[in-house]
Amino acid sequence: MRFFSDNAAAVCPEVFAALAKVNTLDTAYDGDRWSAALDDRFSALFETDVRALWVTTGTAANALALAALCPPYGGVICHREAHINNDEAGAPEFYTHGAKLLLGQGDGAKLAPETVKTIVAGIRKDVHQVQPHALSITNATEYGCVYTPDEVAALGRVARAHGLGLHMDGARFANAVAHLGCTPADLTWRAGVDVLSFGFVKNGGLSAEALVFFRPDLAEATRVRRKRAGHLLSKGRYLAAQILAMLDDDLWLRNARAANAGARLLAEAAGDRLVYPVEANEVFLRVSAQEAASLRALGFDFYDWGVGEARLVTSWDQSEADIRPLAEAIAAL
Amino acid sequence: MRFFSDNAAAVCPEVFAALAKVNTLDTAYDGDRWSAALDDRFSALFETDVRALWVTTGTAANALALAALCPPYGGVICHREAHINNDEAGAPEFYTHGAKLLLGQGDGAKLAPETVKTIVAGIRKDVHQVQPHALSITNATEYGCVYTPDEVAALGRVARAHGLGLHMDGARFANAVAHLGCTPADLTWRAGVDVLSFGFVKNGGLSAEALVFFRPDLAEATRVRRKRAGHLLSKGRYLAAQILAMLDDDLWLRNARAANAGARLLAEAAGDRLVYPVEANEVFLRVSAQEAASLRALGFDFYDWGVGEARLVTSWDQSEADIRPLAEAIAAL
Amino acid sequence: MRFFSDNAAAVCPEVFAALAKVNTLDTAYDGDRWSAALDDRFSALFETDVRALWVTTGTAANALALAALCPPYGGVICHREAHINNDEAGAPEFYTHGAKLLLGQGDGAKLAPETVKTIVAGIRKDVHQVQPHALSITNATEYGCVYTPDEVAALGRVARAHGLGLHMDGARFANAVAHLGCTPADLTWRAGVDVLSFGFVKNGGLSAEALVFFRPDLAEATRVRRKRAGHLLSKGRYLAAQILAMLDDDLWLRNARAANAGARLLAEAAGDRLVYPVEANEVFLRVSAQEAASLRALGFDFYDWGVGEARLVTSWDQSEADIRPLAEAIAAL
Amino acid sequence: MRFFSDNAAAVCPEVFAALAKVNTLDTAYDGDRWSAALDDRFSALFETDVRALWVTTGTAANALALAALCPPYGGVICHREAHINNDEAGAPEFYTHGAKLLLGQGDGAKLAPETVKTIVAGIRKDVHQVQPHALSITNATEYGCVYTPDEVAALGRVARAHGLGLHMDGARFANAVAHLGCTPADLTWRAGVDVLSFGFVKNGGLSAEALVFFRPDLAEATRVRRKRAGHLLSKGRYLAAQILAMLDDDLWLRNARAANAGARLLAEAAGDRLVYPVEANEVFLRVSAQEAASLRALGFDFYDWGVGEARLVTSWDQSEADIRPLAEAIAAL
Repeated sequence: MRFFSDNAAAVCPEVFAALAKVNTLDTAYDGDRWSAALDDRFSALFETDVRALWVTTGTAANALALAALCPPYGGVICHREAHINNDEAGAPEFYTHGAKLLLGQGDGAKLAPETVKTIVAGIRKDVHQVQPHALSITNATEYGCVYTPDEVAALGRVARAHGLGLHMDGARFANAVAHLGCTPADLTWRAGVDVLSFGFVKNGGLSAEALVFFRPDLAEATRVRRKRAGHLLSKGRYLAAQILAMLDDDLWLRNARAANAGARLLAEAAGDRLVYPVEANEVFLRVSAQEAASLRALGFDFYDWGVGEARLVTSWDQSEADIRPLAEAIAAL
Repeated sequence: MRFFSDNAAAVCPEVFAALAKVNTLDTAYDGDRWSAALDDRFSALFETDVRALWVTTGTAANALALAALCPPYGGVICHREAHINNDEAGAPEFYTHGAKLLLGQGDGAKLAPETVKTIVAGIRKDVHQVQPHALSITNATEYGCVYTPDEVAALGRVARAHGLGLHMDGARFANAVAHLGCTPADLTWRAGVDVLSFGFVKNGGLSAEALVFFRPDLAEATRVRRKRAGHLLSKGRYLAAQILAMLDDDLWLRNARAANAGARLLAEAAGDRLVYPVEANEVFLRVSAQEAASLRALGFDFYDWGVGEARLVTSWDQSEADIRPLAEAIAAL
Repeated sequence: MRFFSDNAAAVCPEVFAALAKVNTLDTAYDGDRWSAALDDRFSALFETDVRALWVTTGTAANALALAALCPPYGGVICHREAHINNDEAGAPEFYTHGAKLLLGQGDGAKLAPETVKTIVAGIRKDVHQVQPHALSITNATEYGCVYTPDEVAALGRVARAHGLGLHMDGARFANAVAHLGCTPADLTWRAGVDVLSFGFVKNGGLSAEALVFFRPDLAEATRVRRKRAGHLLSKGRYLAAQILAMLDDDLWLRNARAANAGARLLAEAAGDRLVYPVEANEVFLRVSAQEAASLRALGFDFYDWGVGEARLVTSWDQSEADIRPLAEAIAAL
Repeated sequence: MRFFSDNAAAVCPEVFAALAKVNTLDTAYDGDRWSAALDDRFSALFETDVRALWVTTGTAANALALAALCPPYGGVICHREAHINNDEAGAPEFYTHGAKLLLGQGDGAKLAPETVKTIVAGIRKDVHQVQPHALSITNATEYGCVYTPDEVAALGRVARAHGLGLHMDGARFANAVAHLGCTPADLTWRAGVDVLSFGFVKNGGLSAEALVFFRPDLAEATRVRRKRAGHLLSKGRYLAAQILAMLDDDLWLRNARAANAGARLLAEAAGDRLVYPVEANEVFLRVSAQEAASLRALGFDFYDWGVGEARLVTSWDQSEADIRPLAEAIAAL
């Protein structure tokens, strides 16, 4: 059984079925009715007027969001461990035309309001230093930790106070919402978020993520940037259909709950081996090289994380029966 | 019946079936075995050692190709009517970081070797003028005209003589090969092409194009640029599978032949209304506004092209029975 | 005697003297009192509230101006023969991060309002085509022709109607004003110009041009871009001093009048050999290769311009005595 | 007396005289004989074949150097306190088109070889993480500390081992050489440096720095980039002349020795208040707010540096008599 990444999981059947349903001649690019429906569907979900664009990857979503919030000569405050800093090959720098990521620290890849304030305070207000224009947080974080609505709101206030746009990388937004039981609105715009990268691919989709703008004015230039980046697929209806299928009957939440439940099962078995609280679908475990090898010998695959740690990621399609053997193996270490 | 664009057509069943076949947990990004198979499959097709990367759009394929051939401070010679100049929202400029398109003219959106030589000769060899580093041609062109292997080779010789990399935008490469009956090798690297954007989406695919490097050294940096542009999909196997399905049993050629046949049917009906020779799946027709309206009144949809012209594009999935009514209507104008 | 370029001329004595006057310890960058005085001095000259920044080259001034007016994904309408298109090595594309120059034609490198309208009308209002955001004109043009205040105003109206910012490349603005006898205000903001590159180097300066913003809001980000481009010299007072010296007692106008007078002398001698009306300090002459050679044999140096033409440029420091021999030689051809 | 910055100092008389000497009509841009002489003069100084270009600022020199060594998708390892990271407004990101600065730490803004190795080792060799392509060090550093030839050579070996180009920001290179008493060659190419930003402006120049390429192949594209960045001044001879004057009779070294001597005078007075060893012309001092105020009350101006520290910078034109009063005031604190 593989616990490398939710990226590796299969596509869920409802999404697949949705592809078949749109497989007829229709208007190209995003001129089809499914693409056109996204604004309304996400506006309903978020209880406010939003603009929603499909893109194929979280990297593209994040980079487009940052380009909408930060000029080429500006800076984006984020966590040192943020995906935008560590795992996107410089996509933010490419899309923003060279904006600088201004890095902070914090446990579980979470940024505290004080950390953001300190970064801002450390920058002279002159033309020699790159001035911050945006703040980007990941929810759930790269370490499977979750910001609560209150925590986001506290960051949102700092952002507003310093004129920073607020972006949320929600590659695992569904897992965060599923964990918190809050509304999507409470975790985003009501807490000050301007743009959300809303991930679906890790959660059962095939190739569609949504970029959700809570400030509709930011969306128009982004439509142009999306095309300019080669991300306006000519058969866009196959992307829109995936997202709509994920929204139908809260499939996105059900899938995230399933993945989270799997992680909790592992967390319970792991006890004080846990490096971070398990709040989404990622489990970071303290294990010796020998212990890791013994788990692998039993057929469980996962990534080592630095020295002495392992990362286990559960997916929407892993049942309790799939996961329990690993939980037992961990408990038995 | 709609003749707007082959982009609007449905996805062909073999491609759809291929998606289902890869729908299991596998390695993320392009680490799966289908993605890994592309180099060999395209090497076999092109009878030489190539590197092949999937991307989701022709715009991304073209822009990545140009970035591989031209530095930020260089220029790319292309036709004024080239898709890269007119319909990609500045993607070449984005990916190359500001290279300049140096525009030439020619009937049917084809560039003649003399035109390229004239452009090169008109540029002073100093640091004040942007020096050309690449030549980009489209085959079949934006007007459905085809460069023969000899014509490409003549351009290839000019390119080599001036140190220009040669890119072929093959959004409708299949239609060109189907028309010419030549080998893919003769139309590309044997004629001096360095990189080919090999289109599949217009030809029955869903979201996968191939970027084929005949100079393998150019591919490595492009893999990085693809990721940096947010084009490395996490579930890449669903892209690779589409392409492999198109290559199986020459589906790409069969689909292109079908589309070309439809266009020929219209061309025969059009007679001297034709603006360009019909060599692929596009038909440009001289029609008055009244005539265009009368065709539309019969249920045929298409784009006006400037004043007094109409563009009709046929697709892989339009049968003779689908097209004959339009042919008859044109003949009856 | 050399008539290659006004760029090659010496620095005028008043400018030199000004350098000596600021040669004491003072605040670095643009924190000195001379740099600080530019806003007021140019506001007085232009009879309105402006922001003025020194830069070292016309290329930097133009590129910064365009970056202020046009986003990376936008387009700038200009003449095919514009310096920004032909002689700045892609600086506009670099500073704007890849905006596209949209080229028009017109005699003497002048753009007519109709030409601009035609370019705008030819661009579909969708995300596939690069949308124009700015219009850039050169006054005096690259061929020594001058736009009158009325002509600029007509272009200004077209720009406003289509939401385009209006930039004037005034590398030879002084020559244009000297020729027209109008106020600087009438030729710029009163006619709709948003930003002016006001050249001093060709006109007797050493290394200082002024970038004048008639929309003060555009200046702030430009101050940052200037630093980011490495154009914020640490001893900025030596740039400011040059400009202030040029403004004192209308030195800029006196120098331009001198250069224009030299060109008129040549123009009178040239008669119907003139390719363009001589309205600034450039003279384009129809001469055979033999005639050009005979002039050179007499000790006159200049550039050939294409086949059968020569370009002669006069400078602020060439007296009638310097120029008359060439005028006589031309008359004697 | 002001000790803010050597940037604020006046221009030295020899440099001024050199400007006057070239003040005649000559070839524009860098076609003049003074600009042409730079390659030979620097080749002689560095005892090897180099290419040398003038630019107006250290920021431009650094950013052009990094663009020559690092592709847009690469990374540049440097110290967290490096000028390129902290005080150039993102110029490296602009010129490289978005390369990422990969930051290390170390006392006195010096990087140790182990630090560089650790940074390299922490980066996965895949397309998701930005790969390092260059290493940039500052000598003397931003804190007035000096790398010896051996220390540079140790970094040079690490750079070579990992395929990194090596850039030296030598805004105060003269001060470093003056301190070390070594040859310029030993401190640069013999120790593995590929490109040097050789500063003259802080050391008595007006507006000319030299960019020295020890790998001549890197210079050609840089000449194009210099023009594209608007840094090819049309009257380039006034820049070349400044540099040549600084090289004549080792003026650059004499000026640096003078500035260093001033700093040593302060250092001796400061005793254990020194934060870093004083090896160039900068002195960082532990002083309370009260003490700083008392020094200012005596007429000495300088920057506070964080809390409880002050930065004093001495210049080429400050004599012992100028500096002794401050030294005495510090000793008397």
